[in-house]
Amino acid sequence: MLTDLFSPSVQYTLDIAGIFVFAISGALLAVRKNFDVFGMAVLAEVTALGGGLFRDVMIGDVPPTAFTDLGYFLTPLFATVLVFFLHPEVERITRAVNVFDAAGLGLFCVTGTTKAHDYGLGLTASAALGLATAVGGGVLRDVLAHEVPSLLRWDRDLYAVPAMVGSIMAAVLLRFDSLNGLTSGFAVATAFVLRLLAMHFGWRAPRAWHRRSAAVEEV
Amino acid sequence: MLTDLFSPSVQYTLDIAGIFVFAISGALLAVRKNFDVFGMAVLAEVTALGGGLFRDVMIGDVPPTAFTDLGYFLTPLFATVLVFFLHPEVERITRAVNVFDAAGLGLFCVTGTTKAHDYGLGLTASAALGLATAVGGGVLRDVLAHEVPSLLRWDRDLYAVPAMVGSIMAAVLLRFDSLNGLTSGFAVATAFVLRLLAMHFGWRAPRAWHRRSAAVEEV
Amino acid sequence: MLTDLFSPSVQYTLDIAGIFVFAISGALLAVRKNFDVFGMAVLAEVTALGGGLFRDVMIGDVPPTAFTDLGYFLTPLFATVLVFFLHPEVERITRAVNVFDAAGLGLFCVTGTTKAHDYGLGLTASAALGLATAVGGGVLRDVLAHEVPSLLRWDRDLYAVPAMVGSIMAAVLLRFDSLNGLTSGFAVATAFVLRLLAMHFGWRAPRAWHRRSAAVEEV
Repeated sequence: MLTDLFSPSVQYTLDIAGIFVFAISGALLAVRKNFDVFGMAVLAEVTALGGGLFRDVMIGDVPPTAFTDLGYFLTPLFATVLVFFLHPEVERITRAVNVFDAAGLGLFCVTGTTKAHDYGLGLTASAALGLATAVGGGVLRDVLAHEVPSLLRWDRDLYAVPAMVGSIMAAVLLRFDSLNGLTSGFAVATAFVLRLLAMHFGWRAPRAWHRRSAAVEEV
Repeated sequence: MLTDLFSPSVQYTLDIAGIFVFAISGALLAVRKNFDVFGMAVLAEVTALGGGLFRDVMIGDVPPTAFTDLGYFLTPLFATVLVFFLHPEVERITRAVNVFDAAGLGLFCVTGTTKAHDYGLGLTASAALGLATAVGGGVLRDVLAHEVPSLLRWDRDLYAVPAMVGSIMAAVLLRFDSLNGLTSGFAVATAFVLRLLAMHFGWRAPRAWHRRSAAVEEV
Repeated sequence: MLTDLFSPSVQYTLDIAGIFVFAISGALLAVRKNFDVFGMAVLAEVTALGGGLFRDVMIGDVPPTAFTDLGYFLTPLFATVLVFFLHPEVERITRAVNVFDAAGLGLFCVTGTTKAHDYGLGLTASAALGLATAVGGGVLRDVLAHEVPSLLRWDRDLYAVPAMVGSIMAAVLLRFDSLNGLTSGFAVATAFVLRLLAMHFGWRAPRAWHRRSAAVEEV
């Protein structure tokens, strides 16, 4: 039996909300890249569902939920329509979108870790897949949009670390058989707050030491 | 039992023909990018088989047909050899290649939808995977060649829409249990003709409304 | 029963060594691209495990070994730490890294071919997957780092050909039921030496004939 962290309807609502905000970020990037409405829909779908697709293929849960639950597929299309007609208004609330994106990040790293563990993976591998679930869609979005993945860039606020913390907390809770609605909610909240703090204070991760000795300084 | 839209030998011949023209487009892009003969072969294989590989992995049909049927693997290599020796001649008949590419697009969106449905996916998901089968190889081609996927670009003639129409027609026919050689041929032909019309009249898809208010105008 | 080319502990040590040097090449590229330490870890993991992940998903061996064996996952992290602190020193021994990379290339093309054949694929498909195992991680690395895949570029020394020769040798040996520790070691060594020779003599692969007649000369 799969782990139900929250009641099914709560879990489903949270999933759809996370998918929605990830899709918004994909559609907004498509507008910035001057893509047409179909490019917007593709980037919205890929950003919202890419991480979960990767996880499901890796653990052998095929066809992935994204293809069996209609809500998962239609939500990004709804986000596309919204951005298509209300693009300036959505841009104006980028800050709010970022807050929701942080919430989606926190949610998906914990549920991704839990699902991977349900399918028999070890704790470390589960945490790694939870991280991949949370950040994979954004990486695919950037690759398809022909951008350097913002996850990898030095000059972007920390994104992987909050998800990593959430995934590891979920794995530790699983280790001690104490993952439930309350504790997993705490892991989600920790990742969420860490991401908000990283954005607010502009936290960066370090680059390799002695970089100055390298032949190429700036790229 | 899997749906046989056409007699097996007709179906197989059509598949190989579609793979061949997709491979030609991959090999031609490799020449334009100044890649060597192995880069040509990689792009030819990826363009021709990428969409089907994605579909097969998603529905759990592994190893994918591309790895079990030798003809699927060898056809792109044959296309590579052809482009390698006769590149200027192939370039000169780009218009003819585009017509065949449109035929491949029409064929693969319908057969992709049908195969996904055979593996138990719902109608919407099947149509989405049919679309992905038809356009996925081209997206992978552009990502590997380090280009903005032409599928997403505003300044290219409609490519996704014809495939989308073909996929949806196939899904509707499946819904009413009336998919057969004749009706699916009609769906293929509709997608094919729509693509030809899009190329002939330079049809474009709209971009987000009020784009001018965005900070970045041109990318 | 799966084919054991070498004794399990020898095989495992070789696998980890190959993963380690591939991870070094990923982490070094991340430093050159000015990525932060998490970008380094992502590129190291992707370069080291990407080819094997692709192969395992294609043959249906999920979850892939990379997620079930902790050593596979931790080795790239160790390589990341090393490059992070000792980057200039690692850069200085690039030549040594390239030699180990050539060894990893030779090893993975042979073990990849063997594993694909163990899972029931034909000889040609097995050789193709063996090649993909050996070069797939490097292609993913370049795509994520927003570079033209060096595998495809004309102006890089031969990389695919040595792996191709190793894969084909392994497939031929499988065909004649004569693949064992000795013969597969010979296939590994052949690919390894060919790659070293390609680097030493700057071997290139040809581009399409009559390229000058193409509209675009340099990209």
